[in-house]
Amino acid sequence: MAERLSPEAIEEAMKRIPEWELEESSISRTFEFEEYMDGIGFVNKVAAAAEEANHHPDMEVRYGWVDVSLSTHDAEGLTDLDFDLAQKIDSLG
Amino acid sequence: MAERLSPEAIEEAMKRIPEWELEESSISRTFEFEEYMDGIGFVNKVAAAAEEANHHPDMEVRYGWVDVSLSTHDAEGLTDLDFDLAQKIDSLG
Repeated sequence: MAERLSPEAIEEAMKRIPEWELEESSISRTFEFEEYMDGIGFVNKVAAAAEEANHHPDMEVRYGWVDVSLSTHDAEGLTDLDFDLAQKIDSLG
Repeated sequence: MAERLSPEAIEEAMKRIPEWELEESSISRTFEFEEYMDGIGFVNKVAAAAEEANHHPDMEVRYGWVDVSLSTHDAEGLTDLDFDLAQKIDSLG
C-alpha cells in the first residue's frame, strides 16, 4: 500500500503539478472545455489512465469544465499514487 | 425556450421519475455501479442522450456511483427538458 506523504513531501511533490490545488487531504484541478463532448472525451482519457494506475479520481462534469480530485482513501491522505496520476492527467488535458 | 414548470406541474412530472430526488431547482438521481468503468460507460450514454436533447446534466463520478443532476439554467428552474431527459436516462441505467 502507498504510504501517506508528510507535509514536507507534499510541498515538494506539489512543485511537479503547479496547476493543481492542494486541499486538506486531496488535490484537484479544473480543466476547461469549449464543448460538453470535449469534456466527456477528457473524462474517458482520465478513466483509462485511472484504470491503468488502478487509482480512481473523483470527477465533476459541467458544461464547460471537468474537475478532477485525487486522494488515497486507504492511506487517509495523499500518496505518490495521487501525484503520479495527477502528472499523467496533466499530459492528457 | 422551455418554460419553467409550476410547483403543481413539477409534482405531477415527478410521478414519471419516482427514483429521482427533487431539490430546490433541480432533480437528481444516483446510479450505482460495481466497477469504475461501468460508471464511465454510463457517463458516455448519458452524454450521448444529452447531446441529442441539447440539454446537459451535471454529473459527479465516484468509485461505485454516478450522480446525475438536471436543471434548466435559462429558465432558472425545472422544465419539461429536465423531466424528458431524466426519463430517457432512466432507460439507460
